[in-house]
Amino acid sequence: MQLKVEQTRLAEELDALGKTSEAPPPVVTRVVFTEADVRGREFVKRLCREAGLTIREDPVGNTFARWEGSDANLAPVGTGSHIDAIPNAGRFDGTVGVLGGLEAIRALQRAGYHPRRSIELLIFTSEEPTRFGIGCLGSRLLSGLLDPSAGDRLKDRDGISLNEARASAGFSGCLSTVPLPSGYYAAFAELHIEQGPILEQRQVPLGVVTAIAAPASLKIQIEGEGGHAGAVLMPGRRDAFLAAAEIALAVESAALSTGAIDTVGTVGICEVFPGAVNSIPSRARIEVDVRDIEQTRRDTVLQQIADACERIAAKRNVRVHSELVNSDPPAQCAPAVVDALVHACEKHKLPFDRMISRAYHDSLFMSRISPTAMLFIPSRGGVSHRPDEYSSPEAITQGVLVLAEALAHLSS
Amino acid sequence: MQLKVEQTRLAEELDALGKTSEAPPPVVTRVVFTEADVRGREFVKRLCREAGLTIREDPVGNTFARWEGSDANLAPVGTGSHIDAIPNAGRFDGTVGVLGGLEAIRALQRAGYHPRRSIELLIFTSEEPTRFGIGCLGSRLLSGLLDPSAGDRLKDRDGISLNEARASAGFSGCLSTVPLPSGYYAAFAELHIEQGPILEQRQVPLGVVTAIAAPASLKIQIEGEGGHAGAVLMPGRRDAFLAAAEIALAVESAALSTGAIDTVGTVGICEVFPGAVNSIPSRARIEVDVRDIEQTRRDTVLQQIADACERIAAKRNVRVHSELVNSDPPAQCAPAVVDALVHACEKHKLPFDRMISRAYHDSLFMSRISPTAMLFIPSRGGVSHRPDEYSSPEAITQGVLVLAEALAHLSS
Repeated sequence: MQLKVEQTRLAEELDALGKTSEAPPPVVTRVVFTEADVRGREFVKRLCREAGLTIREDPVGNTFARWEGSDANLAPVGTGSHIDAIPNAGRFDGTVGVLGGLEAIRALQRAGYHPRRSIELLIFTSEEPTRFGIGCLGSRLLSGLLDPSAGDRLKDRDGISLNEARASAGFSGCLSTVPLPSGYYAAFAELHIEQGPILEQRQVPLGVVTAIAAPASLKIQIEGEGGHAGAVLMPGRRDAFLAAAEIALAVESAALSTGAIDTVGTVGICEVFPGAVNSIPSRARIEVDVRDIEQTRRDTVLQQIADACERIAAKRNVRVHSELVNSDPPAQCAPAVVDALVHACEKHKLPFDRMISRAYHDSLFMSRISPTAMLFIPSRGGVSHRPDEYSSPEAITQGVLVLAEALAHLSS
Repeated sequence: MQLKVEQTRLAEELDALGKTSEAPPPVVTRVVFTEADVRGREFVKRLCREAGLTIREDPVGNTFARWEGSDANLAPVGTGSHIDAIPNAGRFDGTVGVLGGLEAIRALQRAGYHPRRSIELLIFTSEEPTRFGIGCLGSRLLSGLLDPSAGDRLKDRDGISLNEARASAGFSGCLSTVPLPSGYYAAFAELHIEQGPILEQRQVPLGVVTAIAAPASLKIQIEGEGGHAGAVLMPGRRDAFLAAAEIALAVESAALSTGAIDTVGTVGICEVFPGAVNSIPSRARIEVDVRDIEQTRRDTVLQQIADACERIAAKRNVRVHSELVNSDPPAQCAPAVVDALVHACEKHKLPFDRMISRAYHDSLFMSRISPTAMLFIPSRGGVSHRPDEYSSPEAITQGVLVLAEALAHLSS
């Protein structure tokens, strides 16, 4: 079998999808169920149909493009990723796994390969937590890790429910029909950019992911007391923003305190109310993200943050309400899928490292119902979630080649 | 002369003006040159016309309602305040000085008083810095403390210039015609709520202001580096929000470090970019307000904040750009106007304290061109710039009575 990736065509398709954005290039903003997201989905589905794939969509918008295998009774093999993008993001996060996955299928078709098991390309809904505050919405529901009735209760910041938003994008039906049975897929492999600097630093073109870090996120509301910035004296103040500032610094300290390089803690959102230069902030809201590859260590960090909230609330006489939005266990990848990727690298004489994914992926949830692994390609400067996120066409081609080879192995 | 304040009528007028808001009651949001501000101005001007006052408006929207005195050659006496309100404010800040000033004039009219000097009620444009980032816009221009060409360059957050905004509210003409000559007013007296807790705590109904604190404000931009909250490890981070958090805490420390109760420092605005829970903040923007009744002490605080910015920028490897938006000297009130207020209190057997205004007022700028003083009434709980801001009708009546008595003395 002679596998050949059409590098220029794939780069053009990534470019076209990148321009399907709420913001002008090079900025990609493609929040789930917005008009840009819907246009992006249409673009990918058209390419899938051109490749002869059959499309199914579930009520939450997870999209399955199927290349029928010769034995329809066998569990299929899955690949894919997401196309939604946070505000002010780049062109490669998620999309490389979707359009690269499609190109892997096309390369197999061009090589005259006929799969025994069907191969399904998945586009997961809302891997990014931007709109509904919870990441991997589609794969969480698919894997049964998010209760459909909890999905029914989700709302965005404007009060639009998940059910209203998905209906506006053309997805109807009951969320309870989304979960797939365990073992639905024989294997699942996701191609993705690393979003970190390790492969580039080591000058290794590929990373075979053996475990996915355990993410947790918190929403913290602080209620203090407002007042005139000139008239209320310092000793009597109950400034909600200063409490938020201390909590944010405590998140950093807690993440550093484990001494482990794999522990990270971030405050990515801070809102201050009323937000006037001459008003003491009466309320503040922050959102916190904590990850580690070891769950107990991560949970120690969460406990330290909770302790800091309590200490700061008492010291500043403010009320702090902390809500644990999600706290997922880490995933170990399946040896069979890891091996398929390793063998594919070896067959094409491409160096690789076994590595850990510190970022959050749909594979974390797919691993609950299917043998799962991931394949990483280098990110320039380790940069992601930014307009200058970049992976070279050559790097993407190597990833697609290895993915195609592994899919052939797993589906044969 | 028998002075009598129509307490119920004034309370109803304050209530009606409070309902002229962009937000539903009890919230008052009346940002300069918005539709609510324009409606508020129309309401007050109608009441002024009903009292027989002659109205003049200058190009920036400062409004002068004149009760003609018997000797038109003499410099008039001024009173008044502002009606614009920050987002989520209350009903009494500024409006007590405008509608209370009008009621003082009406009380003098009802008592059969005829002024020798004309008495002018002023409604200053944009005492609040909400829209154009600079407080006391109208009185700064009137007093010549803000260069008209600098006014021409002001823009709001949406890029709308001051000149476009004032035109949309019906105010045209060149800003260079706004400044009044020094000595234009023989005296200026502003009635205002205290916006602090002192009068209430001391159970004293009136405060005669002898000095106004010196405000300064800063806009601080922080540029770090974004990235994925899971993938970028802690040691390599250049988190702009954590730098902002440290600067905010440094503002608090600097304000406390003087050991003087009159030093205050506040960070009322913090914006984080891109603002996603799984993205490291690449940029942050804060706005800082520092005040003191002693200019040198306040400038020491500003220097400490500048030093902290430099130290934090170096430590976190971020760029910090700090812009001094304004830095005004404190004002000493004029003995003649202070005396007029003191004598009015004594005449009506109302206890008073001499005090300092820590809040920013149009009187700070009027004091540059006119002998100026202020009269404070108690604020319940010291609360201001909030919907629950409150001064009782009885307290307001006492303020109006003393103001009317002092205006009679100053205009006779």
